[in-house]
Amino acid sequence: MKILIPNTIELALTADVESVVYDIDEPIPAEHRDAEVLVAWHNSASWLQEAARALPDLRLVQALASGADVVLGAGFGDDVRICSGRSLHDGPVAEHALALILSAVRRLDRLRDAQRDHRWDEEFIDEQSAPGTRAQHTLAGAAVTIWGFGSIAATLAPLLTALGAEVQGIARTAGERSGFPVHADADAAAILADTDVLVSILPATDNTADLFDATVFGALKPGAAFVNVGRGATVDERALVDALESGQLRAAAVDVMKSEPLPASDPLWDAPNLLITPHIAGNRPVGAARLVDDNVRRLLAGEPLLNQVRP
Amino acid sequence: MKILIPNTIELALTADVESVVYDIDEPIPAEHRDAEVLVAWHNSASWLQEAARALPDLRLVQALASGADVVLGAGFGDDVRICSGRSLHDGPVAEHALALILSAVRRLDRLRDAQRDHRWDEEFIDEQSAPGTRAQHTLAGAAVTIWGFGSIAATLAPLLTALGAEVQGIARTAGERSGFPVHADADAAAILADTDVLVSILPATDNTADLFDATVFGALKPGAAFVNVGRGATVDERALVDALESGQLRAAAVDVMKSEPLPASDPLWDAPNLLITPHIAGNRPVGAARLVDDNVRRLLAGEPLLNQVRP
Ligand SMILES: NC(=O)c1ccc[n+]([C@@H]2O[C@H](COP(=O)([O-])OP(=O)(O)OC[C@H]3O[C@@H](n4cnc5c(N)ncnc54)[C@H](OP(=O)(O)O)[C@@H]3O)[C@@H](O)[C@H]2O)c1
Ligand SMILES: NC(=O)c1ccc[n+]([C@@H]2O[C@H](COP(=O)([O-])OP(=O)(O)OC[C@H]3O[C@@H](n4cnc5c(N)ncnc54)[C@H](OP(=O)(O)O)[C@@H]3O)[C@@H](O)[C@H]2O)c1
Repeated sequence: MKILIPNTIELALTADVESVVYDIDEPIPAEHRDAEVLVAWHNSASWLQEAARALPDLRLVQALASGADVVLGAGFGDDVRICSGRSLHDGPVAEHALALILSAVRRLDRLRDAQRDHRWDEEFIDEQSAPGTRAQHTLAGAAVTIWGFGSIAATLAPLLTALGAEVQGIARTAGERSGFPVHADADAAAILADTDVLVSILPATDNTADLFDATVFGALKPGAAFVNVGRGATVDERALVDALESGQLRAAAVDVMKSEPLPASDPLWDAPNLLITPHIAGNRPVGAARLVDDNVRRLLAGEPLLNQVRP
Repeated sequence: MKILIPNTIELALTADVESVVYDIDEPIPAEHRDAEVLVAWHNSASWLQEAARALPDLRLVQALASGADVVLGAGFGDDVRICSGRSLHDGPVAEHALALILSAVRRLDRLRDAQRDHRWDEEFIDEQSAPGTRAQHTLAGAAVTIWGFGSIAATLAPLLTALGAEVQGIARTAGERSGFPVHADADAAAILADTDVLVSILPATDNTADLFDATVFGALKPGAAFVNVGRGATVDERALVDALESGQLRAAAVDVMKSEPLPASDPLWDAPNLLITPHIAGNRPVGAARLVDDNVRRLLAGEPLLNQVRP
């Protein structure tokens, strides 16, 4: 069985397959169009659409990204199984989410701007130590809500707890998960009113499109922070900019945007108190070779695949 | 007994004393020069020098800062006891240290700069995912060394471990502390050669002046990061800039500098890959009222004081 490995990652496979490394920026060479497994990492949507047409023998697309939405939208035939890289990114994305949360709370973006002006930000120093603003300047005692409480959230939540935050989640169904209280999204409004930091780790689906809109931002405790490491499609970005401009959001940090790379003309770049990172939270999957090996063996043995998202 | 409370913090004391709030930017009113206890928070060195002359009945200066160096240098009489705010800052400083460490590892400063230029930093994205740079772009598996392994380090170290880092310490004496291996400073060189992130939480003393110099930076693993939340006096800042310019240090973040506020003309502001925050790590002591109450009661009862650093 031939498996196509992208040139964007090193994968030392042990499964008994013929591995061929391909360039994600070039068409698939004619002699490799008989591949049965395609591993995708950093491929563009248009490349994947082309691959969907070019690989007639394909049985499995193994995405290494946690969200397989780009692969799912590429038009692979109904008989091609698609598996995501869910769990390969739990550690890296949780770490980046924590970095963005701490940056928003400790206002590293604002202080970096002051530094570029050679300015010791006395105004910030006073604001930070003022009575009454405690929960905005530290995670100790802050109420953190994670919307989308799956694999990554389960890794992030205990890190926040260790810093003294009170963590709860929102997902489609309520219940305790990994020891944290998780509420159904229908009950979101009441939780948001008491939230100091809202963290989104939602996938892009029909139901999550533009979920973070003026209503959600308006329902938050005034001066709350917003962090998104899920998908940009879940955010009404005009509403995000408005909430930052009005001060309803004190700070925000997003690793994902509706349009990536974000065009130079996009108003998001200059929104006040917003930190943008270029979709790098999960830029290095951990344990990818093991997942590919496992799924190749399962495919050969006719066993159920791991992380299968389609069909 | 009269106790002078600065206007820079709210302290709800329960001890049986006459509390008088004073303005740290004004001379002490004549009618309060009979105070026996002075609480200091954010006072300037010159104000403290003046207070040392103006308060003849003084028995105790309770600093709320963790390092009492400014108070110690103000010239209070030998019979005046000086206590520090050690431990009030463990949580806040550990949190800020973690924010700076994650910023250096995840390069939030660089990405903020790219954002200001409306630039999606493809170069960084490639660098971050390149084989061989793993320990530089995540704490998972990174070797973190904390130099100055006291009260704050004991709070910070487990947070780093939770993110997958391998943490060790350097202090004056070797041994296990809070479950972490701590080495004597004489053995530093060998540890530095294997260090991905060096964190300083050292006080300013005669022995720590300019401790972080060209030799120390040169001894680090090439491409290491440096974070300082201790005191600026411990760093040879010319050597820090040199190490950043040569790339020996890949990134650094400092909350403390030799001269604070940092003068607008200081070359540190523009050092490459350096993030500066304006001494805000411990800007909000936690549990200050309890410490002051305790030490006032101990003073009245003739018991040993907490955190006494002099005589
Ligand atoms: N920034 C990056 O570099 C990066 C890297 C990796 C992943 N991500 C993104 O992060 C997402 C989450 O990853 P994960 O591994 O944690 O996924 P996961 O384990 O599948 O968790 C997804 C969570 O979202 C919840 N959810 C889905 N639709 C919802 C809705 N309409 N309302 C409320 N909750 C909803 C799910 O709720 P139920 O549990 O109730 O079903 C689940 O808790 C991925 O889909 C991907 O888009 C980003
Ligand atoms: N940035 C901020 O806002 C902020 C806020 C609070 C504190 N700080 C700074 O952080 C410092 C540390 O605070 P802390 O509460 O953790 O203090 P601490 O508990 O007294 O710990 C200080 C540590 O430094 C070590 N040390 C002292 N001199 C040394 C030397 N010459 N060589 C090697 N190690 C040496 C001590 O070693 P031994 O244990 O072996 O004696 C001890 O482990 C404070 O002194 C203050 O300057 C900064």
